[in-house]
Amino acid sequence: MKPFTSMGTSIIVRLEVDVKQVSFIDIATAVSKAQGDIVAMDVVQSSNEETVKDFTINTKNRAQIDEVVQNLESLSGVKIVTVSDRTFLSHIGGKIEMKPKRPIQNREDLSRVYTPGVAAVCEAIAQDPYKAYKLTIKRNTVAIVSDGTAVLGLGDIGPYAAMPVMEGKAMLFKQLAGVDGFPICLDTKDTDEIIETIVRMAPAFGGINLEDIAAPRCFEIERALRERLDIPVFHDDQHGTAVVILAGLLNALKIVGKKIEDCKIVVTGMGAAGVACTKIILSAGAKNVIGVDRDGILSRSVTYENPVWEEVSNMTNPHDIQGQLADALVDADVFIGVSRGGILKREMVQTMAKDPIVFAMANPQPEIDPEEAEGLVRVLATGRSDYPNQINNVLCFPGMFRGAFDCRATDITEEMKVATAHAIASIITDAELNEQYIIPSVFNDKVVKRVRDAVVDAAIASGVARKIPRDKRKKETV
Amino acid sequence: MKPFTSMGTSIIVRLEVDVKQVSFIDIATAVSKAQGDIVAMDVVQSSNEETVKDFTINTKNRAQIDEVVQNLESLSGVKIVTVSDRTFLSHIGGKIEMKPKRPIQNREDLSRVYTPGVAAVCEAIAQDPYKAYKLTIKRNTVAIVSDGTAVLGLGDIGPYAAMPVMEGKAMLFKQLAGVDGFPICLDTKDTDEIIETIVRMAPAFGGINLEDIAAPRCFEIERALRERLDIPVFHDDQHGTAVVILAGLLNALKIVGKKIEDCKIVVTGMGAAGVACTKIILSAGAKNVIGVDRDGILSRSVTYENPVWEEVSNMTNPHDIQGQLADALVDADVFIGVSRGGILKREMVQTMAKDPIVFAMANPQPEIDPEEAEGLVRVLATGRSDYPNQINNVLCFPGMFRGAFDCRATDITEEMKVATAHAIASIITDAELNEQYIIPSVFNDKVVKRVRDAVVDAAIASGVARKIPRDKRKKETV
Repeated sequence: MKPFTSMGTSIIVRLEVDVKQVSFIDIATAVSKAQGDIVAMDVVQSSNEETVKDFTINTKNRAQIDEVVQNLESLSGVKIVTVSDRTFLSHIGGKIEMKPKRPIQNREDLSRVYTPGVAAVCEAIAQDPYKAYKLTIKRNTVAIVSDGTAVLGLGDIGPYAAMPVMEGKAMLFKQLAGVDGFPICLDTKDTDEIIETIVRMAPAFGGINLEDIAAPRCFEIERALRERLDIPVFHDDQHGTAVVILAGLLNALKIVGKKIEDCKIVVTGMGAAGVACTKIILSAGAKNVIGVDRDGILSRSVTYENPVWEEVSNMTNPHDIQGQLADALVDADVFIGVSRGGILKREMVQTMAKDPIVFAMANPQPEIDPEEAEGLVRVLATGRSDYPNQINNVLCFPGMFRGAFDCRATDITEEMKVATAHAIASIITDAELNEQYIIPSVFNDKVVKRVRDAVVDAAIASGVARKIPRDKRKKETV
Repeated sequence: MKPFTSMGTSIIVRLEVDVKQVSFIDIATAVSKAQGDIVAMDVVQSSNEETVKDFTINTKNRAQIDEVVQNLESLSGVKIVTVSDRTFLSHIGGKIEMKPKRPIQNREDLSRVYTPGVAAVCEAIAQDPYKAYKLTIKRNTVAIVSDGTAVLGLGDIGPYAAMPVMEGKAMLFKQLAGVDGFPICLDTKDTDEIIETIVRMAPAFGGINLEDIAAPRCFEIERALRERLDIPVFHDDQHGTAVVILAGLLNALKIVGKKIEDCKIVVTGMGAAGVACTKIILSAGAKNVIGVDRDGILSRSVTYENPVWEEVSNMTNPHDIQGQLADALVDADVFIGVSRGGILKREMVQTMAKDPIVFAMANPQPEIDPEEAEGLVRVLATGRSDYPNQINNVLCFPGMFRGAFDCRATDITEEMKVATAHAIASIITDAELNEQYIIPSVFNDKVVKRVRDAVVDAAIASGVARKIPRDKRKKETV
């Protein structure tokens, strides 16, 4: 088989072929006329009259795929059942599965893990529900919950369509941090219904990871759940993004030799991520943060309908400046965009203070095109993997929950989030640190352990840990 | 290591030992004074002052365990951290885990299963939600849902304590039928809240297995969910039990040479299982079924508050006989008890027709003690694994959902249940069939496949299949 190149696309076409009308040569000719390459053929089903076969075909681009498909369609005696590319193929049947930790091999095993033996375990938990942490999956299992209203850049695509993202997240949780994640996509957009549903299904879970829920509803949902549940609740789009931005910012400030408390920091886009980002930067010591949304700079002299904006306007903009993004950016040290593509102009960057730091997180088109920012900006970070300094939530959530679970935290506090940002930033040594490398790769295998340790320490310090993990006890007692 | 005998109990005792005060010999002596056997010792943690060790100790019974523990406790310098037996040990951290089907090995994998590649898959489902069956875990995943109100024989022990049963069920689903089960234990006992919660979280799932929910609420919950969801909803305590009882009954009737339509069948205990059992026996052709509960024989001339009893009383007792269990049993061919231990007396069995068939399902104490029934009853079945003819739901639910999933059934119809009973019964050949062997073992590896095939066929015949599995198509077209 020829090697797969990431520039091309490999597709699998399933054909029902009338063997009396069509030969393999006919099919190969149709494919090669479109410059496609058949690299494999697998028989799915075969009879004297009809066969079903999967043809794996290498192609260069979307146009070529269309041509291959057209050529095959035009053969009489051939019916195209499905056309799949590798991304789709990797999703067939879903990406995760539930497995027994140990097989049931005989009657004795069965009567231990199921009736009648299991009854003694049930009774022990009924007497002391906290034992669920010891005797059930609770201590290692997070619900990944979405209502499908703010999925990636796609918006409100509904609970069914949100599932592949949640499954992908479950894969990452397990592979990176050994956390068992289960995706729950809710068929409701009602704030109270979402809250009630999660509260009712919480017993099986040791934590709740909220995901891709639209603002402002996400704020209320998280607030209510943190209040009502004794397990950590973490809205990743808010806090995961905020934590990783802060990690990058800490390292970027090191490069330019500025202190966070002296900086003027403009955050634009006051949605889920922007609000959380503003708060964590304040928690990390910033004094002068300016929030900007479509209507301009958030100001304490304005009253907002959105209670979260009301809260943010009172925490930020200490000099109560007024105006639009361009006004906010004059003499600013840092721009953090979690808004829309293209809103940051070269002229605006030129009014910023020396050594401007720009985090342009809009996806797929950043607030400023990296090519456009070239030469003007000292440190640039985006959400994209094809530029340096990708801000990626994957750096945060696996280690965050690993740490929270290991100490049975009841909550994820602001201290735990700030500690996580410092832990992520610390992966890059002073010798390694430069404008193109402020944030570790998601494949850096030091990240999860470092984050986990920081989260456990911070949870203990915040008083939310219900258990001191053995490794932390050892350090203290010996 | 000495072999573990199933008559004894192996325990693991974790000790914190002050090494200056206590030697291994002290510990070994304390254990052997109680006739315990140390079979393994594992160091958990060690320092100059203190060590933590796990001692695996074979013991004969509970009293001996207590003695071992007492002797160890009396040693100064020893602190007992935990004492666990094998059943508890097999539950530590829970019994199931969520796993990625394929590892993420590089950036290309990551961008296929997560952002940005996953977006194309999400969009495809947003355009056609039915594609969730192809591109997410939906098609193979069942929610195992309980409110913890009727768990085993333990009653209302709550959602935390119910988890070990649901996890055990998930193990069986996967190991026996490749079905991914996820346990959801609900922190509410309100019928409407349970219904709403399940409806809202349904998108991820291809089916709902209701479990250990108290009657009469379970009837309303199942009815409403079947109406509102387009995926199969199956209350195992009702229908799983009923299906396996019918399977056993079909074979028992073969032995005595009677036809179900000619038999007088008494069902006692009109809870979840009893009602379902009554209905499936009627569906299978029985004409004369008598339902009995605490107040006596259910009669169409009485009006019942419980709508399900109202329904059952109108389907049963065609001659409208009155009285108590003893009255019902005169000339009865079959007794089916899903009620309380000890209620069936020898005198009652003596009034039954020739070759009485008795299913005494109460657990742990059957309606009649098998020793007491000896000589009087021709065929006896119980719910217990230590007597012949164990009626065990495990024979039904894995193959039932495997079949329902394979044809993407929208519902589990009465036809599918009856077909399952025939399939289970058919495992035992005429040559094998005898009074001690009317139902296959849960470890019989033919059961799941046989049930699956029967369920698929019945689903297609009932018009609830949305897909004809390839193996069934082949048979029809070639």
